[in-house]
Amino acid sequence: MTNLPREFALIEKYFRPLAGPAGLALADDAAILPAIPGREWVISVDAMVAGVHFLADDPPDLIARKLLRVNLSDLAAMAAQPFGYLLTLAAPVTTPESWFAGFAAGLAEDQARFGIALLGGDTTATPGPLMLSLTIFGEVAAGRALRRAGAQPGDEVWVSGTIGDAVLGLLARRGELADPSGALLRRYLLPEPRLSLPLAGIARAGADISDGLVQDLGHLCRAGGIGAVIEAQAVPLSPAAREAGSDYLARCLTGGDDYELVLAVPPDRAAALQAAAATSGVAVTRIGHFRADPARVVVLDAEGGEMALGPGGWSHF
Amino acid sequence: MTNLPREFALIEKYFRPLAGPAGLALADDAAILPAIPGREWVISVDAMVAGVHFLADDPPDLIARKLLRVNLSDLAAMAAQPFGYLLTLAAPVTTPESWFAGFAAGLAEDQARFGIALLGGDTTATPGPLMLSLTIFGEVAAGRALRRAGAQPGDEVWVSGTIGDAVLGLLARRGELADPSGALLRRYLLPEPRLSLPLAGIARAGADISDGLVQDLGHLCRAGGIGAVIEAQAVPLSPAAREAGSDYLARCLTGGDDYELVLAVPPDRAAALQAAAATSGVAVTRIGHFRADPARVVVLDAEGGEMALGPGGWSHF
Repeated sequence: MTNLPREFALIEKYFRPLAGPAGLALADDAAILPAIPGREWVISVDAMVAGVHFLADDPPDLIARKLLRVNLSDLAAMAAQPFGYLLTLAAPVTTPESWFAGFAAGLAEDQARFGIALLGGDTTATPGPLMLSLTIFGEVAAGRALRRAGAQPGDEVWVSGTIGDAVLGLLARRGELADPSGALLRRYLLPEPRLSLPLAGIARAGADISDGLVQDLGHLCRAGGIGAVIEAQAVPLSPAAREAGSDYLARCLTGGDDYELVLAVPPDRAAALQAAAATSGVAVTRIGHFRADPARVVVLDAEGGEMALGPGGWSHF
Repeated sequence: MTNLPREFALIEKYFRPLAGPAGLALADDAAILPAIPGREWVISVDAMVAGVHFLADDPPDLIARKLLRVNLSDLAAMAAQPFGYLLTLAAPVTTPESWFAGFAAGLAEDQARFGIALLGGDTTATPGPLMLSLTIFGEVAAGRALRRAGAQPGDEVWVSGTIGDAVLGLLARRGELADPSGALLRRYLLPEPRLSLPLAGIARAGADISDGLVQDLGHLCRAGGIGAVIEAQAVPLSPAAREAGSDYLARCLTGGDDYELVLAVPPDRAAALQAAAATSGVAVTRIGHFRADPARVVVLDAEGGEMALGPGGWSHF
């Protein structure tokens, strides 16, 4: 078969070089995950659609890296270490080869950064917009994955990094907010999965902030059957987000795409968390605590009153 | 949060009931695959797009079942047993709730049939056509997965079931071929993954026929660095395919979507294969053999001459 159809040629040229040993050189119907004694596999899938999660003319390497990173963030939320991924790519037939080259270059860059490899995938044409789906594989000591359930009343609410930059970056991209340094847009385009933060034995529950701080903290509350109260003034904001002003505070608390972690940490482990954070170079901030009642998330403003946030979180439907 | 957005409501109502224990009730950022001593995980992903792989107004339960089955077929090709799956669903915002109900019912039916459960997923809106991607998880004794590589000159080429029905079913759907019994269309809409055929210790290499017999046999040849010769007259056709006539023979040999298996079996294991086939109720047929030269697939016609098949296989691009 000297005249390979375009699908096979694209796989051969751009994706086979990304495959690791477990991907069997993408030459098989499936890939094999090695059994690692004492470890178990953590798996997750996240999709991105042009026009919904990114713009069709965004740089393809950044699209690839964001796709990888939102999935890696799910592993960070489970305290798992990344291993590899499967990729589904549905592209319009008009997609130029240069797009695939850029996309594969982005994958290669972040594969190297995070120590992972392509395990397999499926490519297809679509009459619609570009659509990507990535299944991520990580591994964790058996029984030690961090879960959403497990927070106890009295546990403290901690977050990594700064909150709200990504949603402000999206506003900046739409021309609704100034972003002179480009810092906000960068955070929207290229999140940083918090994989380096060692959470085993420290956090009792956790999630990554993909839907918004209030909503994802709500997931921890629902999973634990409890509530949480946080102080808006304690939520860490970046210099660029502070510059946007207090009118945007509620947006920062409910906007999606931060990919920071929200954690339940018993007070007597707070020092251990701070030590781990210092070692890994990831900032962590205490913003409130869990409590039995009411079983919902309450956000207090600077005066100690409850902030009205409107509908928390968001839906793609 | 009493007013859950539609995405969460749909997951709650239609997908959470499909989740197995490993899916953690779909309440976490990721799922956990249990470690099974002596076994390893086989993983694969296949996507389907409305207008490319199915019609948007196909019954949603059949779309769901075909999506599951094309993925299960990849496990069958690796001689793995199915465990569960992750699902990505990108749907137009106009998709009615009844569609989700039908789709989930189809998943539930085949979950029960194949003994699997939903492990997690991602749902999103798309401005384009409905797009589905499914990651399948199976398990196999460590080191015993069937691979595409491994066929030796002198091994026989065997196939399961009948070949070509699906491509003829697609022609029938397009009105290009009569299909009075509907048998051809049924084979196109609802393939049968050959999971029940025990292949360990019998087949030396294998693949499922998704791109077409000649092309997928070509995959075995390329992986082994050898060739194969098959006799067109030996390829098993269904009564409905025979009725279509010899004009359609080449289409049957190169058409996709059969999801039968093509296997390399040493001659001294042919009896074991036939016994296994009889036990599992899956027909198997010897159609040729592998040879060192030439390193390509040759199809002989009834007179012993080489059939011209045009470009073998197909591409979605």
